[in-house]
Amino acid sequence: MSDIIVQKFGGTSVGSVERIDAVAEIIKNASISNQVIVVVSAMGGETNKLIELSKHFGENPNKREFDALVSTGETVSSALLAMALHSKGIKAKSYSASQISMKTTDSYSKAKILDVNADKILEVVKDNTIPIITGFQGVTEGGDVTTLGRGGSDTTAVAIAAQVGAMRCDIYTDVDGIYTTDPKIVSNAKKLDSITMEEMLELAGQGAKVIQTRAVEFANKYNVPVRVLSSFNDGKGTLISLKDESMENALVSGIAFQKDQIKFTLHGVGDIPGTAFKILGPISDAEIEVDVIVQNVSVDGKTDFTFTVSSEDQETVIRVLESIKKEVDYRELIVDSNIAKVSLVGVGMRSQAGVASKAFKALSENNVNIQIICTSEIKITMVIDEQLIDKAVSVLHKEFELEK
Amino acid sequence: MSDIIVQKFGGTSVGSVERIDAVAEIIKNASISNQVIVVVSAMGGETNKLIELSKHFGENPNKREFDALVSTGETVSSALLAMALHSKGIKAKSYSASQISMKTTDSYSKAKILDVNADKILEVVKDNTIPIITGFQGVTEGGDVTTLGRGGSDTTAVAIAAQVGAMRCDIYTDVDGIYTTDPKIVSNAKKLDSITMEEMLELAGQGAKVIQTRAVEFANKYNVPVRVLSSFNDGKGTLISLKDESMENALVSGIAFQKDQIKFTLHGVGDIPGTAFKILGPISDAEIEVDVIVQNVSVDGKTDFTFTVSSEDQETVIRVLESIKKEVDYRELIVDSNIAKVSLVGVGMRSQAGVASKAFKALSENNVNIQIICTSEIKITMVIDEQLIDKAVSVLHKEFELEK
Repeated sequence: MSDIIVQKFGGTSVGSVERIDAVAEIIKNASISNQVIVVVSAMGGETNKLIELSKHFGENPNKREFDALVSTGETVSSALLAMALHSKGIKAKSYSASQISMKTTDSYSKAKILDVNADKILEVVKDNTIPIITGFQGVTEGGDVTTLGRGGSDTTAVAIAAQVGAMRCDIYTDVDGIYTTDPKIVSNAKKLDSITMEEMLELAGQGAKVIQTRAVEFANKYNVPVRVLSSFNDGKGTLISLKDESMENALVSGIAFQKDQIKFTLHGVGDIPGTAFKILGPISDAEIEVDVIVQNVSVDGKTDFTFTVSSEDQETVIRVLESIKKEVDYRELIVDSNIAKVSLVGVGMRSQAGVASKAFKALSENNVNIQIICTSEIKITMVIDEQLIDKAVSVLHKEFELEK
Repeated sequence: MSDIIVQKFGGTSVGSVERIDAVAEIIKNASISNQVIVVVSAMGGETNKLIELSKHFGENPNKREFDALVSTGETVSSALLAMALHSKGIKAKSYSASQISMKTTDSYSKAKILDVNADKILEVVKDNTIPIITGFQGVTEGGDVTTLGRGGSDTTAVAIAAQVGAMRCDIYTDVDGIYTTDPKIVSNAKKLDSITMEEMLELAGQGAKVIQTRAVEFANKYNVPVRVLSSFNDGKGTLISLKDESMENALVSGIAFQKDQIKFTLHGVGDIPGTAFKILGPISDAEIEVDVIVQNVSVDGKTDFTFTVSSEDQETVIRVLESIKKEVDYRELIVDSNIAKVSLVGVGMRSQAGVASKAFKALSENNVNIQIICTSEIKITMVIDEQLIDKAVSVLHKEFELEK
């Protein structure tokens, strides 16, 4: 196995020149025992500053130009980090997406990685030089700049780790690792030493903001062990393990939740084959990630079709739904942005009965009404009133004794 | 002749989102009667902000990283300008150096343009879309980002105008045109409606800060008419004409001066063939532009060799001179940074005697001592004490009645 590790540093980790110095020190130490490849985000706040500038010219700037604009943040931080390493006597070179041919689809702002020139990166490594690669960025076949969406640098890092055959991808962030739930909501939330890839996938998808879902999917697909740890404090972080190594799994390993969600219900849709596809096909074509999808049994040949998306996609979804109004007949469109999701995640759950009912009971005893329920083998997701989310997370954390 | 014009906007012209809007209006108006290609600098002050960030990691950052860093300013402004044009209903697309294959040498921070993909730019124009191209940037054959040096966007604009066969290159700036001398020093300095390329070449080289020397050289070499005008006020600016069209030339058309200069004198150099080359060859190899070069007749086989360079190159020149100490024997190296240059420029000068003596007399009567004199057909350059430069410019402007 190679001794290459990929280290990825997020925006807060490189939020100032002092932080960039601190990160250079972490890289220097890692380079003593390993060959290192670095992926870096824009300095914290910089991407938002660029977005503010663009807003002067309208709320919906052209996406090609938007991507060219916001991707500059990573070019800045990668060059500065290379300089910081030079100042510590370490050989390093910054590379943009274009320079390492990080090819993506041309879905601007939500581009998907197609390929990356691993040989070019490995050549740099062989020359005892640390490549500092811009996260978040990509290029189309035609050479236009794209971005991978918010948090895309995680995906960049895992994709590169997969392509160069790295032994591990370390995601440095501002938290110590993965917790049973958000410590800001539940004070005795516990850090996990390891978590399975499956559990992490469910957690990340449900809004555990530590690492991007797509990055975990990539890691899962290409068998890249990922570790999440802090660039601010020492510590081993949480290893997202490839295999389920513990003898016996906890029933519930974590609680995830997400607030910036919006719920669409197509009321009175005809319950005929192809309806779900007619609705979700065009939405997927618009590169919108749909989260919970629920359709219940029909009454009188009519049913209700409900799905949730991220709040930022509200306008696009409404536009898409209007455009398919002729093909998909429905009585009424109900849009509700006053919702939140909370999910119980655990590999142990699939072999154990009663988790769902225990959760429902605890919530009802605390006057939290559940609007939608949706379960998978290792996850139970509930959509509830947004105002009740903190309470719900606390109740469930206590109920499943996650503080222990 | 094509009806394409290239418009270049400098940093102050695009210094804020409001200014970018104003520039978009200028472009929109020009696009009514012409096909337009735009070249843009970074928003005023942005490049300096980036340089400040880099200084945290040492005074002399690696030049490859430095160029990757500072070139992001142009990427930002080009994307924003494209958005501003969209908001006015004009089709536009931003392009970085990499996207239009603006190939340069790999002399980072002082790269020279080798080639540019004119076909790609013309394709965009044919699609009724205005290409907004990043000035200042280039790429090496290997795909690394370079920059052309301060003011390099002028050169980008003229190079593109030459390659696409544009009818004219308009350099938009914060002044109304070319003046007989700096109006800040001489209040009745007069704007010229036109100036010959030769005169402009001498003026630009001597520090008339309106347009970069290399840009004028390019324009001269490829016969591109250039116009300098203001993006803040209406007006026709100053046309830098290809031919000397006026029947009779003014004796002196302008006075240029430059302060950030440094003078090197190699005292007691052997007056043998090849000495000048041995000194200037390595300096030129280090990509340093030497300005005035003076060597006087020898006494006892020894002579003094003097040249001036821009202040920023001081350290590099000293390093080069030390490295050739063995090959070029000299008694002493005298470095003087307390100097300034002032030049009289005029096509009429070559057919008229007495300009030089008239200038020397006026300066001596005003107690300005001339350290070095160096003349060409259309220029007289004098190196004087830096403290006396404003006085010298005023005296000469009055002497040659340039206010009339």
